[in-house]
Amino acid sequence: MLEEKKPSKISLEDLGEFALIEQLTKSATTALPSTLHGIGDDAAVLKHEGEMVVSTDMLVEGVHFDLGYMPLKHLGYKAVVVNLSDIYAMGAQATQVLVSIAVSNRFTLEAVEELYSGIHLACKTYDVDLVGGDTTSSKQGIQLSLTVVGIAPKTGAIKRSGANEKDLLVVSGDLGAAYMGLQVLARENEVFKANPNHKPDLDPYTYLVERQLKPEARKDIVTLLEALEVTPTSMIDISDGLSSEILHLCKQSEVGCRLYEEKIPLDPQFIAVCEEFNLDSTTLALSGGEDYELLFTIKQEDFKKIKANPNLTVIGHMTSKSRGANLVTRGDEVIPLKAQGWKAF
Amino acid sequence: MLEEKKPSKISLEDLGEFALIEQLTKSATTALPSTLHGIGDDAAVLKHEGEMVVSTDMLVEGVHFDLGYMPLKHLGYKAVVVNLSDIYAMGAQATQVLVSIAVSNRFTLEAVEELYSGIHLACKTYDVDLVGGDTTSSKQGIQLSLTVVGIAPKTGAIKRSGANEKDLLVVSGDLGAAYMGLQVLARENEVFKANPNHKPDLDPYTYLVERQLKPEARKDIVTLLEALEVTPTSMIDISDGLSSEILHLCKQSEVGCRLYEEKIPLDPQFIAVCEEFNLDSTTLALSGGEDYELLFTIKQEDFKKIKANPNLTVIGHMTSKSRGANLVTRGDEVIPLKAQGWKAF
Repeated sequence: MLEEKKPSKISLEDLGEFALIEQLTKSATTALPSTLHGIGDDAAVLKHEGEMVVSTDMLVEGVHFDLGYMPLKHLGYKAVVVNLSDIYAMGAQATQVLVSIAVSNRFTLEAVEELYSGIHLACKTYDVDLVGGDTTSSKQGIQLSLTVVGIAPKTGAIKRSGANEKDLLVVSGDLGAAYMGLQVLARENEVFKANPNHKPDLDPYTYLVERQLKPEARKDIVTLLEALEVTPTSMIDISDGLSSEILHLCKQSEVGCRLYEEKIPLDPQFIAVCEEFNLDSTTLALSGGEDYELLFTIKQEDFKKIKANPNLTVIGHMTSKSRGANLVTRGDEVIPLKAQGWKAF
Repeated sequence: MLEEKKPSKISLEDLGEFALIEQLTKSATTALPSTLHGIGDDAAVLKHEGEMVVSTDMLVEGVHFDLGYMPLKHLGYKAVVVNLSDIYAMGAQATQVLVSIAVSNRFTLEAVEELYSGIHLACKTYDVDLVGGDTTSSKQGIQLSLTVVGIAPKTGAIKRSGANEKDLLVVSGDLGAAYMGLQVLARENEVFKANPNHKPDLDPYTYLVERQLKPEARKDIVTLLEALEVTPTSMIDISDGLSSEILHLCKQSEVGCRLYEEKIPLDPQFIAVCEEFNLDSTTLALSGGEDYELLFTIKQEDFKKIKANPNLTVIGHMTSKSRGANLVTRGDEVIPLKAQGWKAF
């Protein structure tokens, strides 16, 4: 669809870089008092009191996303969300975002505007100002690079390195669904390729597909923890899969961990579709990735503050480093955790 | 050379993403007091007093650089410099940089380390901390995205929009040489392709080639202006060519401009090689691009403070908007300036 060249579509080549930037950023109004000067200069000008956090991520077509099943608006939305997630993982509030995009000239202005409509929607949803970026051509496909700036809590940013022995390991939401959503979309795409008249019935998979195509970052959890007066001792977001992220916390905090298989929160739809696909739900929850949930540790004394909350699940506890990072299975076996992670190469 | 696969070279695929990041960032020590927490978490943690500036740029192989004549170390160095230039163009001091890189697996670890050695060298040269980034695979070639953070001067960041009628238009250094350096390298590359035994003699072109392969950002000019107690009313860096940047200042400041051809600073080597290539030096100086000099306006009363300085040249003055932005030629003709710019698409 993107490759169509109807006469009504405007090519990027005809438009030129400056006109494209003007077109894309005209709806980028800034709202936050910390944004002194947004798009349109050599740099944005910001003013933050206290500590600030900054993070950047790159998304490459064919590596991180497939336009065969990722609509451009969703891609724009997801690109922002993925980056915001890193900011919330520091216990911080995201405030500004910069978006750079490289596109090949097979894309029309309308296609790029569609992508930006998702970017603008995410900015609006999460109260973030779009304050800068870069626009250029690529040799092939789309590459996106986003940078997000945020304000750390007054008590300081929450790092990966603060977990202590006996701290409880907590996760928000449920795991594995985004990965399973990708499997569903990939299967439907294969069927569609074989039979273009095939009408996919995605009804039994709505939650999984939404987790893949329109993930949300857990800004609400940061707010919730503040309201509950719980300060995590360490935190990370789950982008590469639970195993991999637990190992990051363990390594940087110099502790070990016991993760209990039976505690890992799974959505009923995820469990059902794992059975349909004949896949092991625990394996997928451990290494599926793209959940964008928050994984954090809290002091034992804070357990009473979170135990009634349906958004939070205690899945294990930290141990001494020498005991290693392990999964305790439903059958009471103890298995060392492995980082499957996101295979970037 | 990069495509060679000697058994001693380590492939990125074998190494994996996490090990690659560790390898590349182990020499990234942070030195500035404003860097509270660098690489290794979901986000970097910074603390700046007052206004800060932030800017981002993307560099795509085949669009912004050609590895046929751009050594990887130079590419890394230039990628940082190009971004720093945007920060200095705000009258600010650059403090932190984040580097994202997407590379295809045709590159070896050694190749990526070479690129990073240039990045580290630029950070050291300009007193900037490398505090974050992202590393991923690409489908084709290298894409780089950099974000730079800086501290604005106490009097506030210098924008493109502050120029007034009668202000003087000033440029640092000389123009056109980087573009001409690219022409020289492209010609040598063609000769080399036709005859691999050809030994290029680049001696008559050293300045031009250096301006292309190892540009420097004008941090020194920001310091100089402070020392001279000159606060530009508007400023921009010259990345797309003098014409294009003058038009940005005029548009955003809502003024016109008279630029005098005879005043445009050109290096003797540039003039000589323009003659050799039978190219018009003024045209190239106006639209060559990649000079990374600073273009700014000052109040007339500040002229006495800068007039003796060999680094600064007054090339024109601002007028009312209705008079337009014009070049006054050596023959006293008045020609409207056009934005040739960087043809990104």
